Amino acid sequence: MLLKSQEHLSVLKVIIITALLIIFTSSLSVSTDVDDSLAYIWPLPAQFSSGNDTLSVDPALCLSVSGKGSGLKIVEEAFERYKAIIFEHEVEGVNSHSVFNNFRKRRSRGFDIGTLKIVVHSDNEELQLGVDESYTLLVAKNEGLSIIGEATIEANTVYGALRGLETFSQLCSFDYDTKSVLVYKAPWYIQDKPRFAFRGLLIDTSRHYLPVDVIKQIIESMSYAKLNVLHWHIIDEQSFPLEVPTYPNLWKGAYSKWERYTVEDAHEIVSFAKMRGINVMAEVDVPGHAESWGAGYPNLWPSPSCREPLDVSKNFTFEVISGILSDLRKIFPFELFHLGGDEVNTDCWSSTPHVKKWLRDHKLTAKEAYQYFVLTAQKIAISKNWTPVNWFVLFCANEIASSIFKFALPLDFHS
Amino acid sequence: MLLKSQEHLSVLKVIIITALLIIFTSSLSVSTDVDDSLAYIWPLPAQFSSGNDTLSVDPALCLSVSGKGSGLKIVEEAFERYKAIIFEHEVEGVNSHSVFNNFRKRRSRGFDIGTLKIVVHSDNEELQLGVDESYTLLVAKNEGLSIIGEATIEANTVYGALRGLETFSQLCSFDYDTKSVLVYKAPWYIQDKPRFAFRGLLIDTSRHYLPVDVIKQIIESMSYAKLNVLHWHIIDEQSFPLEVPTYPNLWKGAYSKWERYTVEDAHEIVSFAKMRGINVMAEVDVPGHAESWGAGYPNLWPSPSCREPLDVSKNFTFEVISGILSDLRKIFPFELFHLGGDEVNTDCWSSTPHVKKWLRDHKLTAKEAYQYFVLTAQKIAISKNWTPVNWFVLFCANEIASSIFKFALPLDFHS
Repeated sequence: MLLKSQEHLSVLKVIIITALLIIFTSSLSVSTDVDDSLAYIWPLPAQFSSGNDTLSVDPALCLSVSGKGSGLKIVEEAFERYKAIIFEHEVEGVNSHSVFNNFRKRRSRGFDIGTLKIVVHSDNEELQLGVDESYTLLVAKNEGLSIIGEATIEANTVYGALRGLETFSQLCSFDYDTKSVLVYKAPWYIQDKPRFAFRGLLIDTSRHYLPVDVIKQIIESMSYAKLNVLHWHIIDEQSFPLEVPTYPNLWKGAYSKWERYTVEDAHEIVSFAKMRGINVMAEVDVPGHAESWGAGYPNLWPSPSCREPLDVSKNFTFEVISGILSDLRKIFPFELFHLGGDEVNTDCWSSTPHVKKWLRDHKLTAKEAYQYFVLTAQKIAISKNWTPVNWFVLFCANEIASSIFKFALPLDFHS
Repeated sequence: MLLKSQEHLSVLKVIIITALLIIFTSSLSVSTDVDDSLAYIWPLPAQFSSGNDTLSVDPALCLSVSGKGSGLKIVEEAFERYKAIIFEHEVEGVNSHSVFNNFRKRRSRGFDIGTLKIVVHSDNEELQLGVDESYTLLVAKNEGLSIIGEATIEANTVYGALRGLETFSQLCSFDYDTKSVLVYKAPWYIQDKPRFAFRGLLIDTSRHYLPVDVIKQIIESMSYAKLNVLHWHIIDEQSFPLEVPTYPNLWKGAYSKWERYTVEDAHEIVSFAKMRGINVMAEVDVPGHAESWGAGYPNLWPSPSCREPLDVSKNFTFEVISGILSDLRKIFPFELFHLGGDEVNTDCWSSTPHVKKWLRDHKLTAKEAYQYFVLTAQKIAISKNWTPVNWFVLFCANEIASSIFKFALPLDFHS
């Protein structure tokens, strides 16, 4: 989490974004028409073909799931969510006053797509890095000659089926003239799989607390872009919002008593994300971004007047890290765990007498002690059956990279 | 809708708000503790008293409605919404793995409030200006001696019951230590009624299109502050997003084909608002803020090169206004309808030959024609059984105020 040290970069970013916005806005004002030669699917599927038919979708669209994974509730719940999105605008005839007229209209109109068929081959719903998210999607007029037709998603896992549902919903457009939901440019035949196994978005709930409902909205929106990892930067120097049962004073470092997450809140977030095929990678950034820990346990600071990084000289520091990671292991099933490790200014270690003595006794420079800290934290994470991740900036500290990164996976794209 | 003419005021506002934010932020950083002598209810009820008890609320809280209004679904749906808000955080023991343990825990804990009783005396659910929103709310330990006790809301109308539910939800706090929902400072005895019959919030969907879901979120949040009128400034010179069946080209003035509201969307917004005791006051701002009308019907402009205000010289202009108001009357049951009428620059009338001739033929100055326009629009609104509202700025145009405002109700607090 680079802040002060990269302020010039941030300013540059703002300038670039502003410039792009101006260009984008002025081009928008020229024309808001649609280029029909393009496929409006985001991200663009790996392979697809389309035609020239326009198909209508029945507002009473049914789901038919088959395959070994058909018993899993993930697909059914997702179908209900996507149905609400696809039929966001009320369709002509639905909820009209006369049930009879309504029925007649719909029968006579004869929708092209009345059922969405989903085939899920596996009943394994474990969600880990590299899980099979591939799917095929066919949307075509059923001529009565084939057993497939209408709309069919086929996937190896429920998570592939979720991605297929997202794509299907993007093919459906509300037509304001006929007030019906249409699929243009059918037949569609789409074969898709992600290019990257890790497609993440970072939220930072330490610098700015986000209510659970807001985090859920973010997760929901991630599913629209087929992102699959919520990188939850939970704690930093500014606040410690998460409950840690083993060290119950830690969340005294929250901004206020309302700006906190219970263990149950965290479970709820993980489970909400899983229903959308999204893993939650928790981050506990040590030893540099951890001042808030000392609000509950001041011994974690080198001294009350010199509070960061965490005191490398005390066993207690690593006991607390181990306690946090044990508690978090019960909440976060994802195999990756982020230990931060960036932006460590070791001045407090060199200037605080008892830490200075410890460095001398162990014949360590401050930089070597930093290396020792990161490595020890990684070992703790590994002992809890986690694959540790660190910020990329550690790679740049060449002297310590070789030893540290035998365990670290530089998988985060946001560093 | 004052824009350009009051830019200096806007700048002043920004400065004041910034200053207040700085003061507020710095005072926040001093202490985020709660002053227990205060009642954290917003807006503060008309009369209330509290005590020193702390009561626990059962997460399986039941609703019991009685009175002539007990059959109306408004209260039941609101109860379910508020239950989700009150129990936003999962409560200890609920959803735990052992059903038996769970049951035992809850029985032995013995919640103080297990039922919320709501008495609604009237079965009239018409929502008009001045509807009775009063209620009484009692939250007290039931000592078994009285038929009232626990939590009881009594109201004349369902809308009073909604306000009581909002207040009840504000009394309930999640306690992070016991992980339960508690009511502090009980017994509470609250007698409340609004000080103002019209408590509005304005949204402007012409300058910036808001999706239906966003409007619903705004309405939902209004209910938390007990606001009761959504002032929907639908159309302005920038865009015409609403479908008008009688003049189907009008919404060609929308920003794009996706940034539109169907008649069904508008119905949905009105009905969503009513379930929260909120009226929707539609605004169609004439003749000054209406350039977008001409995208569909260019004859409404004085000329293609001079597009505002609407052409006062043509009958067609008033036919279109009448058509819009007829169509909108079927959507918006609220008795008030806002006709705008502000910021009219009559230069286009004085400079366009055929309008200039019309003014001369009718022996009207441009200002008198402005008065004629506003008055005619008001008469149309009145003929549709609406009470017209105009922007307060018209009062300042002293010369025309006396005649115009025999019909106008200056009820909007935001002008």
